[in-house]
Amino acid sequence: MTLLFTFPGYEELAKNLAGKLKCTQGDVTIRHFPDGESFVKLNTDVKNHEVILLCGLDHPDKKAMALLFFTKVAKELGAKSVGLVAPYLGYMRQDKRFHGGEAITSTIFAAFLSQHIDWLITIDPHLHRHKTLDEIYKIPAKALHAAHSIATWVNKNIDHPVLIGPDEESEQWVSDVAQQANAPFIVLKKIRHGDQDVEVSVPDVELYKDHTPVLIDDIISTARTMIETITHLKKSGMKPPICIGVHAVFAKGAYEALLESGVESVVTCNTIPHASNAIDTSDIIAQVI
Amino acid sequence: MTLLFTFPGYEELAKNLAGKLKCTQGDVTIRHFPDGESFVKLNTDVKNHEVILLCGLDHPDKKAMALLFFTKVAKELGAKSVGLVAPYLGYMRQDKRFHGGEAITSTIFAAFLSQHIDWLITIDPHLHRHKTLDEIYKIPAKALHAAHSIATWVNKNIDHPVLIGPDEESEQWVSDVAQQANAPFIVLKKIRHGDQDVEVSVPDVELYKDHTPVLIDDIISTARTMIETITHLKKSGMKPPICIGVHAVFAKGAYEALLESGVESVVTCNTIPHASNAIDTSDIIAQVI
Repeated sequence: MTLLFTFPGYEELAKNLAGKLKCTQGDVTIRHFPDGESFVKLNTDVKNHEVILLCGLDHPDKKAMALLFFTKVAKELGAKSVGLVAPYLGYMRQDKRFHGGEAITSTIFAAFLSQHIDWLITIDPHLHRHKTLDEIYKIPAKALHAAHSIATWVNKNIDHPVLIGPDEESEQWVSDVAQQANAPFIVLKKIRHGDQDVEVSVPDVELYKDHTPVLIDDIISTARTMIETITHLKKSGMKPPICIGVHAVFAKGAYEALLESGVESVVTCNTIPHASNAIDTSDIIAQVI
Repeated sequence: MTLLFTFPGYEELAKNLAGKLKCTQGDVTIRHFPDGESFVKLNTDVKNHEVILLCGLDHPDKKAMALLFFTKVAKELGAKSVGLVAPYLGYMRQDKRFHGGEAITSTIFAAFLSQHIDWLITIDPHLHRHKTLDEIYKIPAKALHAAHSIATWVNKNIDHPVLIGPDEESEQWVSDVAQQANAPFIVLKKIRHGDQDVEVSVPDVELYKDHTPVLIDDIISTARTMIETITHLKKSGMKPPICIGVHAVFAKGAYEALLESGVESVVTCNTIPHASNAIDTSDIIAQVI
């Protein structure tokens, strides 16, 4: 039998996922003592079961020890395997020793996880110098794409959408969502007139004045790129956009700043628990388990 | 050559220790990003050197990943060995599966550390069901006693001290400090008159009315035991005591409550950085390295 456990914050995603996988939910107590130590107790018998743990790895330091304790006690108590569904995968940015003496945390963290779990599923990880997860993970590690979940949500919720990519780098990603949502898309273009003089243009804007602009990015952290893009859309006469992010990382104050920047609304996938979560990713996860 | 690095908070202890060991201090940058990830950068070349890291393991979850990154990058960059001086050792209380399904965090955490460091030195760890560190650590692991540091401090700072143990369990520990400080000691006695009716007596109190009571305990966490003991000392007519703890764990509000409970002062060893730190442990650490 397969048992699905979840760390605090992912209860709704766990429920959706368990429904789609037709598997039983296990119960685990995770507590943090005032002295900063963690307590982990499995309340469901795992003996001879395949265990899936749902635990996003935003704020990874807070969770790493509890995750270690979970995997160890599950194995000690007879779990056949422990797989991790981490809708957001932390420690993917320091993928190089940029300056002498720096720890390459992406590789070290991947080795730490590889040692304690049997497989990993994540959604749109930050792959830059590492081209695939297999370069750093020694276990089966699969990167899913939220494009399908986002396209489904856009289809269902937005009339006459036009998808917007904030820069040329986002073209492939935005065109993928657009194709699946059967919607048009445009990508903002930077025209350099000099070192400091950069003009941003919104191509074909006249075609889409009556459409609802849907601005898409993978991670919203400081929200600076989004807010800047919104300014350009406004200037060119478009309607207030709906902003979609895959991962609601949101630095302090960033969500509030984005809400006040003249958007229609801000919507994210449920990969990191946040007030803006509206796009369910249980479909794409369930498909590969 | 031996290089001594320190995590934030232990700078003074590191300076004292480096002075006594006549070793060079290494420089490391430890930063925490707003998204909860850690950054570690060695600013001193460790190639072919023996590395000592000073990092207490109070709030271990906050530090475990940075500690892992430190040990890995030090080894990658050619350190001959990485030893850990953790003046306070966390995860020592859950030394048993008290209820089914619980992770035995003392054992799992010890295995985690054993994998990444070459040796461990700590001070007065909470050894209860584990009788020695060797039961759970696979590396050389040494538990030092703060008694000598405390006795030296008492000798130097208190006229006519009488050392006080809060209960009979503390007798061995308090008598050890008393002997080294060449001072008398008393241990409070509980006399049971019934299930609910417990009388606490202060033996030989008449002998010590003019002495300065020095109340000693290993960990001050909630400070409840100390505050209760202070009430008994007051009732029996003793002077306001000086309270000494080895480890300044202090739950929220506990230090303030202790200060307001009628003490002369509160003093702790520098094993966990805290405003009350006054007793230096660099002597006992330097002796064994």
